[in-house]
Order: sequence, then structure tokens, then C-alpha cells
Amino acid sequence: MIKVGIVGVTGYTGAELIKLIINHPEAEVSAITSKTYQGQPISSIFPIFNNIIDKKCQGLDVDNISEQTDIVFLCLPHKISMEYAPQFIKNNIKVIDLSADYRFDNVNSYEKAYQKHSSKELLKQSIYGLSEIYELQIKNANIIGNPGCYPTSFLLPMIPLVKEKLIDSQFIISDSKSGVSGAGRAPSLATHFCETNESFRPYSVTNHRHTPEMEEKLSEHAKESIKITFVPHLLPITRGMMTTIYTNLRTNVTRTHIEEMFHNYYKEKYFIRLLPKEAFPDILSVKGTNFCDIGFHVDNESGRLIIVSAIDNLLKGAAGQAVQNMNIIFDLKEYLGLNKL
Amino acid sequence: MIKVGIVGVTGYTGAELIKLIINHPEAEVSAITSKTYQGQPISSIFPIFNNIIDKKCQGLDVDNISEQTDIVFLCLPHKISMEYAPQFIKNNIKVIDLSADYRFDNVNSYEKAYQKHSSKELLKQSIYGLSEIYELQIKNANIIGNPGCYPTSFLLPMIPLVKEKLIDSQFIISDSKSGVSGAGRAPSLATHFCETNESFRPYSVTNHRHTPEMEEKLSEHAKESIKITFVPHLLPITRGMMTTIYTNLRTNVTRTHIEEMFHNYYKEKYFIRLLPKEAFPDILSVKGTNFCDIGFHVDNESGRLIIVSAIDNLLKGAAGQAVQNMNIIFDLKEYLGLNKL
Amino acid sequence: MIKVGIVGVTGYTGAELIKLIINHPEAEVSAITSKTYQGQPISSIFPIFNNIIDKKCQGLDVDNISEQTDIVFLCLPHKISMEYAPQFIKNNIKVIDLSADYRFDNVNSYEKAYQKHSSKELLKQSIYGLSEIYELQIKNANIIGNPGCYPTSFLLPMIPLVKEKLIDSQFIISDSKSGVSGAGRAPSLATHFCETNESFRPYSVTNHRHTPEMEEKLSEHAKESIKITFVPHLLPITRGMMTTIYTNLRTNVTRTHIEEMFHNYYKEKYFIRLLPKEAFPDILSVKGTNFCDIGFHVDNESGRLIIVSAIDNLLKGAAGQAVQNMNIIFDLKEYLGLNKL
Amino acid sequence: MIKVGIVGVTGYTGAELIKLIINHPEAEVSAITSKTYQGQPISSIFPIFNNIIDKKCQGLDVDNISEQTDIVFLCLPHKISMEYAPQFIKNNIKVIDLSADYRFDNVNSYEKAYQKHSSKELLKQSIYGLSEIYELQIKNANIIGNPGCYPTSFLLPMIPLVKEKLIDSQFIISDSKSGVSGAGRAPSLATHFCETNESFRPYSVTNHRHTPEMEEKLSEHAKESIKITFVPHLLPITRGMMTTIYTNLRTNVTRTHIEEMFHNYYKEKYFIRLLPKEAFPDILSVKGTNFCDIGFHVDNESGRLIIVSAIDNLLKGAAGQAVQNMNIIFDLKEYLGLNKL
Repeated sequence: MIKVGIVGVTGYTGAELIKLIINHPEAEVSAITSKTYQGQPISSIFPIFNNIIDKKCQGLDVDNISEQTDIVFLCLPHKISMEYAPQFIKNNIKVIDLSADYRFDNVNSYEKAYQKHSSKELLKQSIYGLSEIYELQIKNANIIGNPGCYPTSFLLPMIPLVKEKLIDSQFIISDSKSGVSGAGRAPSLATHFCETNESFRPYSVTNHRHTPEMEEKLSEHAKESIKITFVPHLLPITRGMMTTIYTNLRTNVTRTHIEEMFHNYYKEKYFIRLLPKEAFPDILSVKGTNFCDIGFHVDNESGRLIIVSAIDNLLKGAAGQAVQNMNIIFDLKEYLGLNKL
Repeated sequence: MIKVGIVGVTGYTGAELIKLIINHPEAEVSAITSKTYQGQPISSIFPIFNNIIDKKCQGLDVDNISEQTDIVFLCLPHKISMEYAPQFIKNNIKVIDLSADYRFDNVNSYEKAYQKHSSKELLKQSIYGLSEIYELQIKNANIIGNPGCYPTSFLLPMIPLVKEKLIDSQFIISDSKSGVSGAGRAPSLATHFCETNESFRPYSVTNHRHTPEMEEKLSEHAKESIKITFVPHLLPITRGMMTTIYTNLRTNVTRTHIEEMFHNYYKEKYFIRLLPKEAFPDILSVKGTNFCDIGFHVDNESGRLIIVSAIDNLLKGAAGQAVQNMNIIFDLKEYLGLNKL
Repeated sequence: MIKVGIVGVTGYTGAELIKLIINHPEAEVSAITSKTYQGQPISSIFPIFNNIIDKKCQGLDVDNISEQTDIVFLCLPHKISMEYAPQFIKNNIKVIDLSADYRFDNVNSYEKAYQKHSSKELLKQSIYGLSEIYELQIKNANIIGNPGCYPTSFLLPMIPLVKEKLIDSQFIISDSKSGVSGAGRAPSLATHFCETNESFRPYSVTNHRHTPEMEEKLSEHAKESIKITFVPHLLPITRGMMTTIYTNLRTNVTRTHIEEMFHNYYKEKYFIRLLPKEAFPDILSVKGTNFCDIGFHVDNESGRLIIVSAIDNLLKGAAGQAVQNMNIIFDLKEYLGLNKL
Repeated sequence: MIKVGIVGVTGYTGAELIKLIINHPEAEVSAITSKTYQGQPISSIFPIFNNIIDKKCQGLDVDNISEQTDIVFLCLPHKISMEYAPQFIKNNIKVIDLSADYRFDNVNSYEKAYQKHSSKELLKQSIYGLSEIYELQIKNANIIGNPGCYPTSFLLPMIPLVKEKLIDSQFIISDSKSGVSGAGRAPSLATHFCETNESFRPYSVTNHRHTPEMEEKLSEHAKESIKITFVPHLLPITRGMMTTIYTNLRTNVTRTHIEEMFHNYYKEKYFIRLLPKEAFPDILSVKGTNFCDIGFHVDNESGRLIIVSAIDNLLKGAAGQAVQNMNIIFDLKEYLGLNKL
């Protein structure tokens, strides 16, 4: 059994990781940590865990946690992650980091969007954990920078399209919509029930910190510099994410090309579901799963391509993909513990 | 035009008062105050007021506000209200206090449920603002203790029943359900969207601070000491409140007696809507209104009486009833500014 | 007092019209009709109207209704509207039609998107009721084709932009999101609570029937043929609509040009609220109002313009704009009965 | 592997059963039937099943289904169930019926609440599937009448209380609140998103058909005839149920007696979670689980006992308990396939 540590367990991502690992036939939760709730049983924070798991939150003593684990999932805020990740790596513990600290290849992009990077050496070794795309590198990785939720929903359909030069890479618009759990569990006016319920709003218009993450990965696969227009919106739902992407086909590219390309890339990928012609995803059909559903429409008259993708932001957009990456690292079937409902 | 001051305007009750007063044909908003947002236009806090009202929040300088107003609505926390109310009264400004500070006749009950009372003299003069019941006293009041939302939904049907000795006053159970706006605008884990959405839970089981308020008023009308069982629950909706009350009829009391009694008490009361036989309220039908809808069922076999009442917690349960009381004080029709949708 | 008839009153638009007209200082509801609920009081269908209005639904006898009214709002399905509108016009009753039957200038566009048109003569006289744009023509109109909700949210920001040649008219993408009330009150799996709650989905991707309506109006103002890409989505909220539009600025057009242009067009328009720089609309701030809030962002690097508009789909997107049009026809201030909250 | 048939698979209970069986280590879905969707893959009805299960809906040919299965779950409407159950039993297939047809011991009670019973012989052999209470009988049953959702949430705490004579059995009030999925998947005005969202309402006040089911079981365990007062309400959530019960303790019964009694009855019952003192259930903590959470409060002054229980109406209230019963019948651990999140 793989011994799993979840560091910073008391947010929504930490809770999802617990749920996944207790469902996992080859892994078990061996340590959980929380600064705020140290010493308290996890079921006192999330009563759903009563009778299911009775672990207590420990403090974050790296050596102590390292002794109890084979791999740790870091559910820490940006900046805090890079304080601890190198210590776990030094102890030969595999690290899957769910913050942004190990996602970038270009440290300048990171520093522009976030803050000074204090773990540049380890950043160089880190592999971007978009499982379907980086599977081979993930197999041998010691540290994974688990992708952001928006980037996951955007990059899975877009990387093959730019790689195969099927679309006009200078014209990519991503209109995304996310459930409130993406904003975390800390109370704020923005997450107050009455301010979000029965409402809908854009935020961080064109300056969301996931934009450079998406642009870097897309550019690498396109082998050219790509800028995108990205507008996220807040949906009055707890979990789920939808991304509607608008772009133009290159000359002579048809619906059939797109279909075949997606089929070639993803037919063997368990967690990518290509929808039939003129079918589009809905959030209800991915909620609680690790799937990324993709549908698209080609407007022949205008040459426009519209792609819609949907994921559960807490699963394929965070904890689910993290477990998928753990499976790949430990040479397990990628869907182990994730292929049930 | 009645010049209205709203003190502590930036909560949900304050915002509702603005909406009501700008709809009111005989009143106008002449001053608004906020400690936190002093100097800021109200539309920067609630953008819905753009183009509608461009007042700025003032600091709470009682003499200054008194010069600008005929009446003030105090939307302040318990304890803070009783610091300011006496000063406004001294300046001959009418006060409608929406905190609990001026609701109790028995100061001990207040102090047991809240804290030490520092304005006992004024408390003696204060009238409980349950409009339909205390209309005559409200006419001549200088200060009103505006009722709590739960007490409003409970007392309107129950006061006549105990006064007329139609029910067993030792057996009264109130199962109430409130929307989240009742918890106020301050962010907390309890009001976080993801903790409330798709959930439902009881809270303050039998020890909610509205219980002594209900028991005091009920006892006064019954001319005997009455204890009730009260359990509030949190509904995943922004606004609205429903109270389901269970009691027993006294011997020989029938459905017809109840119907006639309610008809006698409330037939001329604009804001009480008695529903037809076997019809029951729903929150959708009172949301955005100042109505209290009441339906009931008599179970002949068991002699049990079930009463269901519904109100909008921010209107009849707070700001709406406060304006109704203002209308009564200024000798206007009680529904002025309140009888539209 | 203007005597108002509401034909087909038992849908969500009909109910909103009642609410608006009973708030209106210069108009009154003099007749309401329903085929299904003929003879029943409106309060038995919408209990919120108890004590507010006690009218009964009549059958649709045109001559009878004509005698009771100065103007009728037709809340009938497409196709049925054009059976009755000519009869009301013959009786010299003003008609505001909320179906699509009188919105198009080009009858072929209508017939392609809907069905054969059987009232072509009257269609020629009809004025498109986008109040801020067609105000002068509306003043003298006998019949108004009240705009669709999506077209209202889209055309208000876009017509000035194409008229002033500020954007690339061949590249216009509209990503819209609507509350469920837009789908009407008839039960279906698509409007079932459990199928919509906690979900989100696109529908009618690029083939929604509001597309030709938007394209026709935009083309007329641009004096060139314009095609747009339009994808509507269903939001899990009762009411409200947001439209996010992506386009490109023409060479040398700057943020300042856009600002000045919007200012010039709309500074005197009560119901258009231009938000300050980098502020964007949210649905909560327009719900229950007739406002259209507009915010925009210019991305200097890419020359892209992103516009976000928000309306209440049942008000500015239907009943509210219809009343605004009635005000214009009867030479009243356009905001009468609509400028309160 | 136990071969499972799900008859009438296209409602919410059917979909939950599929999810549970595909998670079950000792069972598999071997046949699914639907009258309406015969021949269609289940993933075309519920797209969440794409890549998960690709079974097609068969018609309901009993002999054919019997050959493919060891046990069938009947998710059919009342009355239809009793047409088919006897045929499966004749073929030696175990039957778990999720309708009301096999829940009653007293056929008159059934016929009064539902309709004429046409399978009285089999009814006599049927065991009521409240797993924790009837476990011994379930072990040897061929046919199970799976309990209603309201009865499950009510009877689990109440049966021990009446059996042990701890409460006044003539005074039992149950105020229940259910999510909308309990109303089924058929579209109706009552389940229309806009009629339920942001609302709350009671229905079937004292005449819900689950009342005789609760009274019969309670009376049997109390060995006296018990009548209860039961008022169900509709919550604006998809799934989850809470029941707040009010009763009186018998003389000299204390909180400690209640605690010990619950502990004795349920300490070994995996799916009953007794909450610590003054903790109460919330729906979020049982959603997606087969748990029944129970909390209670004793009001010493009045001698009143308040019990709050929460379940997921589709799991412990329907499909989950059905699988628990299957586990018991096949001599498996009762939580197999049900003890994960």
C-alpha cells in the first residue's frame, strides 16, 4: 500500500484527497497535517468523515511526516509550498504540489504572476502534472506541479490543436466558468452565500494568474509564442467548471480533421470523453468524476471552431488529477481509485 | 417628506431600508452612516444603487445626523444600539431600533440572553414593534424595538390563539427555517457558499436568543407564563422564512373557531394574508413583500393544530416592518411604500 | 390612467408585467387573459398576488379586451401572436408583442428561423422595441416587436460600436448565460430542478433563434452584413443574464475612444449604466431592475475588446423593456414605474 | 459476483443503483430495463455513465431478465411493482422492491393509502427492509419492501425509543424536509426550477402516504397503536433529507437513558452515526453516503426530547439501503460497496 500524506488537509482539495485515497485499492492515508487544526480529528472539521476515517491533524514536521509516507500531496498556499517541497524531496519522498509553485518552466513568468521563487533548482526538475499530456515524464518524476483547474480544462483540448497546427494560434479566446469551491474555504465577502447565490460575475478579466500558466504550456507545444484571451466567471454552484473556447480553423481544416486528431490523441485516454457530434458537456455529467468531457462545433461558414470542455474543478482540476499522477508515478493503472462514481 | 436616517446602512437590512424608502411616496433617505465605509458612496458597496441613489456614508455624529433627519433606523449590533438611541431621543428624533436592545419588557430576560442593559430608562418607554398587535401604542411611541424575524413569524399567528385561550399553552413547538441573509453580511464559515449551498441544518437548538423574546410577548398576552420549544434551521436560500408550529386545541375548539378568530383579528390587517382551507404558505409567494402568510390545519382525530407562517425575513422580519412602524408613527396608511411588488 | 391588457398572463413575463403595472403611477391593469386558466383569479396561479390584485383571467375575445384597454402586451407563443395582433390594431389598440413575430425587418430571416409569417403587412409597420436605440420611432409606433433577452444584452453595447466603426465587424463572439426563467414556465426535463441545479451547460450552439435577430439589427446599423458567433448557456439561477462579448478594435482605436463613444450614446439614457474602468457587471446588481450594466476591458497588446453586459432577463430582457416602450409611446418619462427597487 | 438487474432504471433511484453496483466488489450490473428508453444505452440518458458502463436498456421480459440475474431491484411505480414481483419470485430471483407495494403488514393500510393490492400472498412473505432493525429477517428473505425515505429517517431513531418505552407515544411530531430528487424525474410544475429554487414549502400536511407506513412499524414495535403528526416540506436542494422530531420523555427518563439506549441499539451498526452531545446533523455531512446521522437534545425543564436525523434520500432513503439489504441477503458485510465517499 502506498502511504500517503496530505499536507494542509483542511481545505476543499484536502478533503477530496482523503475521499479519493480511502477509495483507492493501493493507497492509504497515513498522515494528515494542518496548522490551524493541529491535534483535532479530521471528522471534527468535516463531519462527513465520521466512522470513515479517524485520523488527527498533525503539525508539519517534515521529518516526522516523511517517516510515515511514500508520497505527500501539498495543499498549501503558493509560496508556502516551496518552503517545504525541497525538504520532502531531500527525504526521498515524492511530492505532488497542488499550488502554483512548481508549474512553470520559465521562472520569470512565475515571478511576474506570483512572487519571487525560492526553490529554483527543484523547479527545474518538476514535471507539469497534466496527466494525459505529460504521462511519460510523470512516470519518472520526483516532484509534480499539479495544474491549475482552468489550465486543465483549457489545455486538454487545446494542446493537440496547436501542436497539429489546426487552428489560428493568434486567436484563442477562453470564456471559463467555475464553481465557488475553486475560491477555497476561507470566508470572504466574495464567497458569502448571499453575494454569490443567484448571481454570476466575471473576475480577473484578462489578468488571472492562470493565464501565464496556459500560455507557457500552449507555446511550448506550438513551438511559437501564444497569447490567449482568458476571462473567468464565478458560477453559483459548489463544484464544477466549464470552459468555452473560440478559435478559427486554419484553411482547409474540416470537422473531420478535428475529430480524427482528437480521436488519435485521446482514444486510449480513460479520462477524456469525446462527445458525439453536436453534443456538448454539462457540469452535472462530470461532477464527482475525474473526467474531462469535450464537445466541439465547427461553423463552416465562418471557419470558427467552438470547443466546450467540462471538469469537476476539485477532481480533474485538482485532487483527482493529483491522484491520477500518483498512479502514474507508482506504475499503477491511471484510473485506479478514480473510475467509480 | 419624512427625512429618514439609516444608521449602520451597509448590512442587508440597511440596503433593504434604502430600497423601501426610495419607493416611499412620503419619505426620503436624508442620511446614511457607516463606520467601515465612511465617505464612500453607497453604490460602491451595493452597485445595484448606481443611478438610483448617490448618497455617501457619513460617520455616526449623532447631532449632525439629528439635524438631517426626523427619524432614524438603527441597524447596529446589539449593545451598540443602546449607546446611541438615547442620544437621538434627546434630540427629539424618533428611533426605530432593529437590534434586540429595546424589545424586552423584562430587563432580566434581556440581560440573560444578551448582556448588561445600559439604557434601562429608555427601554421602559420603548414599544415592541409588532405592527398588527401593538399599533395603538406604536402611534405614540418615540422609540420602537423592532421585532426579531423569528418572533414576527411566530407571534403573529400565536398571540391571538393564546389570548383567546384556544390552545394548550403548555404545548407549543415552533420549527423554523430561515434564509442565510438572516445571518448578516459578515463573512464566516457558516455563511460560506459551499458550506450552506445544498445543505440544511438546525442551530441554536432550544437556546436561540429569540426564544425569550417570543416567550415574553406570548406570556403577556396569555396572562400566564408560557414556555415554548423553538428550533431554528438554516435554509440554502438568500431570503425568506417559514415557521411550522405544532400545538393542541383546547377541548371543543374546532377549525371554525380558529378561522373566525383569525378573521376577527386580521381581516382589516393589510399585511396578514389568511390562506384558504388546506392551503399553506410558500416562501416564493412572500419573497420581496411585507406580507405574513398564514395557513393552518386541524387534525380532528388528535386535536392537533398545525400552523404554517411565511415571511420575507428582511422585510416583514426586519426592514419592512420597520417602515410599517414608521408609517404608523407618522399617521400614514401602514402600507405606504410597501404595497407594491 | 393608461388601461393595460396583458394577454397570456400566466407565464413569468405576464407575472412580471402585472408587478410593473401595479407599481406604475400612470397605468393600471384593466384586463388579463389566459386560455388555460380562464375564469380563475390570478392570485390562484401566483399566490404572491393575494391582497395585491384580484383580477380574474378572461378568455381572449379581442373586441371585449379592446373595449377595456388602451394597450395590450401580448405574452403569447410565436405564431399565435400574429393571429391576434392585427385584430387589436384594427380596434386601434396599441400592441406591444413580446414574441418574435414582429421583431424582424426581413421576413425571410423570420421564416427561416421560425415559420411562415402570416401578418406581413403589420410586420412592416412594426418597430423594434430596443428602447434606447429606437426611441424616436417607438414614440409613433402602433405596434412594437419587443426584443429578445439575448439580443437586448448584446445589441445595447454592440450597435454603437459597429455604427461608429470602432471594431472589426467580422469578428464578434458572444458568450451568453441566462437564468432558467428564460425557458418559460412549462415543465420539461430541461427545467427540472435536479437537472439544472448545480449544473451549467451550453445549448443551441450557434443555432439559437436569437442569432438572426441580432445579426439583422447589427447589420442595419453597420450598413454591412454582419455574422456573429453566439453561444448561449443555462445558469442555475431563476433570473438574470450576462453576455460576454469578444471582438477586436480597429487600428488606432483606444480605450478612450470607446469610453467617449459610450458616454455620448448613453449618458442621458437612464437604464444604461456604464461602469467605471475595470469594473464589470454582476447579475445581483441588476436583478429586479430594468438596468443594463456595461463594463469593458481593452487589451492593448492584442487589440482585443471584451465587453460584459448584464440584465434581468425578465425585465430589461422582456417585461421591463415592454413597459419602458409603453412609457415612450404614451409620452411619459421612460423610467416611470421602473426606477424603484 | 452477484448478478444484478435494475428494473425501471431511468429515474434517480435507478441511476444511483448503477453507481453503487459498479462500485461494489461483489456485484455487477447484468441487466437494466426501461419501457421508455428500451434499446438506448444508459449513457445517452445519463451522460455521466459514458466510459463507465455501456449497457443498453432492455424491455421488461421477466424470463429473459431472470436468466441474466440473481437479484432484481424494482424501481417501478406503485402498482406496477406488484405485477412483476411475483413473476421474478417464481423464477427464484430475489426481489428488492423500492415502491410501496411490499412495505405493509396490514393490507388495509396499504389499500387505504394507495390502491387495491393484487399480490397479497407475496406481501405476507415480504420483509420490511429497514436494515438495522430487520436484519435477521432480511437475511432469509426472498422479497424486500424497501422503506420510504421519510420512514427511514424517522423510524431509525424512533423504533428504539418506543420499544423501550422511553417516550410518550401519544405525542410524536415529525417535521421533515426533503430535497427535490424525492419527487422523481418526471417534469411537473412542482419540480420546475423556478418554482422550487429560492423557495420552501410544506406539502401533504398530515396526509402524506408515508404516514401509515411509519405508524404501522412504530405501532408494531411499541405493541400499541401509535398515531403521529407528520409534515413534510420541500427543500431547494437536489438531494438530502432532514427530520426533526419532537416528543416528551416519560417520567424519570433522562438524557443518559436515551444516550445509553441509542448506544446499545446502534453501537455496532455501521450506518448509524450517533453524534456527540449537543451536536446535530447537517445534510452536507450525509450527502453521497448511506449514513443516518442522529443528534438529540433533552430539555430538562419541559421534559421534551428533540431528535434530528439526516440521510441522503437517494441512498439510505432508497438505493443505498437497497444495496445494504442485498448485502445482508447474500451474507456479505452490510457496508460492502457503501463505505466509501
